[in-house]
Amino acid sequence: MMERTMAADVAKRMDARVRLCGWVDRVTDHQGRRLVVLRDRTGTARLVAPADVVSAPRREAAIEVTGTVVPADAGDPGGPGVMVLVDGLVESGPVAADLPIGVGSPLEHRLDWRFLDLRRPRNLLVFEVQTTAERAMRHYWAEHGFIELHSPKLRPNPNRTGRELFTVPYFDRQAYLVQSPQFYKQMAMAAGFERVFEIGPVFRANPTATSRHDTEFTSVDVELSWVHSHEEVMDFEERWLRHVVSAVQADHGDEIARLFGVEVHVPEIPFPRVPLEEGRRLVEASAPHLIQPPGDLDAAGERALGRHVAREQGHDFVFVTDYPEATRPFYHMRTQPGSPLAMGFDLLWKGMEVTTGSQREHRYDVLVAQAEEHGVPLDPIRYYLDCFRFGCPPHGGFGLGLTRMLMSLLGEDDVREVTFLHRGPDRLSP
Amino acid sequence: MMERTMAADVAKRMDARVRLCGWVDRVTDHQGRRLVVLRDRTGTARLVAPADVVSAPRREAAIEVTGTVVPADAGDPGGPGVMVLVDGLVESGPVAADLPIGVGSPLEHRLDWRFLDLRRPRNLLVFEVQTTAERAMRHYWAEHGFIELHSPKLRPNPNRTGRELFTVPYFDRQAYLVQSPQFYKQMAMAAGFERVFEIGPVFRANPTATSRHDTEFTSVDVELSWVHSHEEVMDFEERWLRHVVSAVQADHGDEIARLFGVEVHVPEIPFPRVPLEEGRRLVEASAPHLIQPPGDLDAAGERALGRHVAREQGHDFVFVTDYPEATRPFYHMRTQPGSPLAMGFDLLWKGMEVTTGSQREHRYDVLVAQAEEHGVPLDPIRYYLDCFRFGCPPHGGFGLGLTRMLMSLLGEDDVREVTFLHRGPDRLSP
Repeated sequence: MMERTMAADVAKRMDARVRLCGWVDRVTDHQGRRLVVLRDRTGTARLVAPADVVSAPRREAAIEVTGTVVPADAGDPGGPGVMVLVDGLVESGPVAADLPIGVGSPLEHRLDWRFLDLRRPRNLLVFEVQTTAERAMRHYWAEHGFIELHSPKLRPNPNRTGRELFTVPYFDRQAYLVQSPQFYKQMAMAAGFERVFEIGPVFRANPTATSRHDTEFTSVDVELSWVHSHEEVMDFEERWLRHVVSAVQADHGDEIARLFGVEVHVPEIPFPRVPLEEGRRLVEASAPHLIQPPGDLDAAGERALGRHVAREQGHDFVFVTDYPEATRPFYHMRTQPGSPLAMGFDLLWKGMEVTTGSQREHRYDVLVAQAEEHGVPLDPIRYYLDCFRFGCPPHGGFGLGLTRMLMSLLGEDDVREVTFLHRGPDRLSP
Repeated sequence: MMERTMAADVAKRMDARVRLCGWVDRVTDHQGRRLVVLRDRTGTARLVAPADVVSAPRREAAIEVTGTVVPADAGDPGGPGVMVLVDGLVESGPVAADLPIGVGSPLEHRLDWRFLDLRRPRNLLVFEVQTTAERAMRHYWAEHGFIELHSPKLRPNPNRTGRELFTVPYFDRQAYLVQSPQFYKQMAMAAGFERVFEIGPVFRANPTATSRHDTEFTSVDVELSWVHSHEEVMDFEERWLRHVVSAVQADHGDEIARLFGVEVHVPEIPFPRVPLEEGRRLVEASAPHLIQPPGDLDAAGERALGRHVAREQGHDFVFVTDYPEATRPFYHMRTQPGSPLAMGFDLLWKGMEVTTGSQREHRYDVLVAQAEEHGVPLDPIRYYLDCFRFGCPPHGGFGLGLTRMLMSLLGEDDVREVTFLHRGPDRLSP
């Protein structure tokens, strides 16, 4: 079989016989000639044939064509340029008469027919960007000696607080779906893996249906041994993210500008770092109507802080540090013994939280005391606490939501638009 | 803080002051001097200090030391070579008195304390190899224009046959954990993604506890559009696997030989391809006591065929083709309309099945007829069948079990040894 030519490469193959594969974007007839616009991953190509030679394929049919690349002039269907004079066209199967969705269909309806919705070049670009971003992440990890982890998604006990947990009947017992690989990546530190990453699914039985929540999403997790403060963890994350954004900008910057109207900026390092209390004061000063909850920022406060930093420092990112330990997980290390502050951070990207990270408490006695203070029952997490009894290095890490990253990169405000197949309380299919 | 030196690099830093981080492999005293062997990811280093300066750390303590690299002679603890004269040693925390496992502990006991078990260099190597193999896979995919997929693990209906399925109460409904991303990667073909891969967890509620089965494992999945037969899919898989094995051989061949006693052979392509009936005859001839089930090979038959091919052709791999369609999933294309044979294959690696693949049936009417013939109810899979009604290209693909690949590469015959944290009917922790 003749080698395939991609739509974007047709112009380079003038006078050659070519084979093209793709979808019928549109079909029109022009005085006895038929114009078919073929669409593939790289763009579109113009196919022309006598109307009596090639029967009219339906829109969105999958076709393979052979033909010869020739120059087109003003008299040709579609005007001057390049076209393929078709001598053979095979449809991979008949196409049902009416497409169930169109460009203007409401989101939930489009999601019902997601495989058709994803054919739009804008939607395909989301997953090209995702692929490039993950490739850049892994490249950076490989250069820095990381081990890839595949930790189990079925666990014997609830982690976090026991809320928003999916249960799974497991033979004669109960299992739970992980909400985060946190305990497992720390276990890898106790095992001497030193530096690990994992990109995998996590599950949250959150009954609220919003444009930012889902019951299943892809978490990007990193953990580093032999670091002594969250400052080192932030140092790592900002260099890593700059590498990722650079790759996306280089490979897709123009297409993102064209299809999403967003410029991809490669961030300067270091990223701005703002202690929470200062962040709260900045929000209060720039948006006095936004009353913030004690010891935290809410989503509106984060957006206001993001806008402030963008305005004052021209930066898309800001690390928020010095959260009260009471509002953070028990395993975050504190700045001093008995300190009310945790050695943790959130990272905001264009005003949206994309990461939580910290230096972890690796001293068994201190960790147990912190769990007790936070009211975490010890028995169910013995298997985790045991990791700190036989030599565990100081370590820290962070998690990043893959779809939140895509939302920030593309300026998209609905998580369902950047997820291959969204899962929410009201959506479990297709 | 001084930059860290890895144990393997100590000899290169003669006379320098260094900082090392790792675990205490052993401690011995020599006439007033203390010898500590430190172990990190790269190997071991010899630390020496006056016994009254450095208190004796316990075995497996996590330590950070500073000191000077000097030559050692016959009179030094450990004999001639290189040692670090320690001037500072910090333990990251106290270590409980008795290690719960040792080298001779039974497997299930070692798995209870997996984070300690994983500290053995042999076990760490498994995950270094896994990391390298996945990096090579993704590199090959990137070079060939693949998109990375993260398909949902929660699905609305059972796939496959409904057996071995975990259920998840999902708000007011029931969800199921995926046994394979099969339908979703095909959906990506209907969406125009053209070529996709996914490395992610799949779940099988198999109640049998064996050394080859688990209830959760990592599946490597590939799907390709615009291919017209399973021969093209095998062509792709063998080139891809050769690339992967080459990378493992180059990066870890020596260590695998040292710690597993196994030579990593980079396979020649094409791999041998044997139709099932011929494979059965070869098994019958070389191992007449192995009675094979009709239309298939069992595990012992696969091992016998693997041995036969290794002996006759010196090859670790063999594709088995031409299975009866009745023993294959309904979505495998048949060699001809109405043919009893499917366009599918299994790949055996050292006599173990690591892959099932096929050309998929993409013609809606034929697919529906095959589902009906196989007794698959249509209503629950409407969302899948719909993908073939609006233009779906011809496509094929395969899945590969990541741990089975590691078992083949390392000559290891228990899946629990090559899984970070094993999950089986009797094991849900740690």
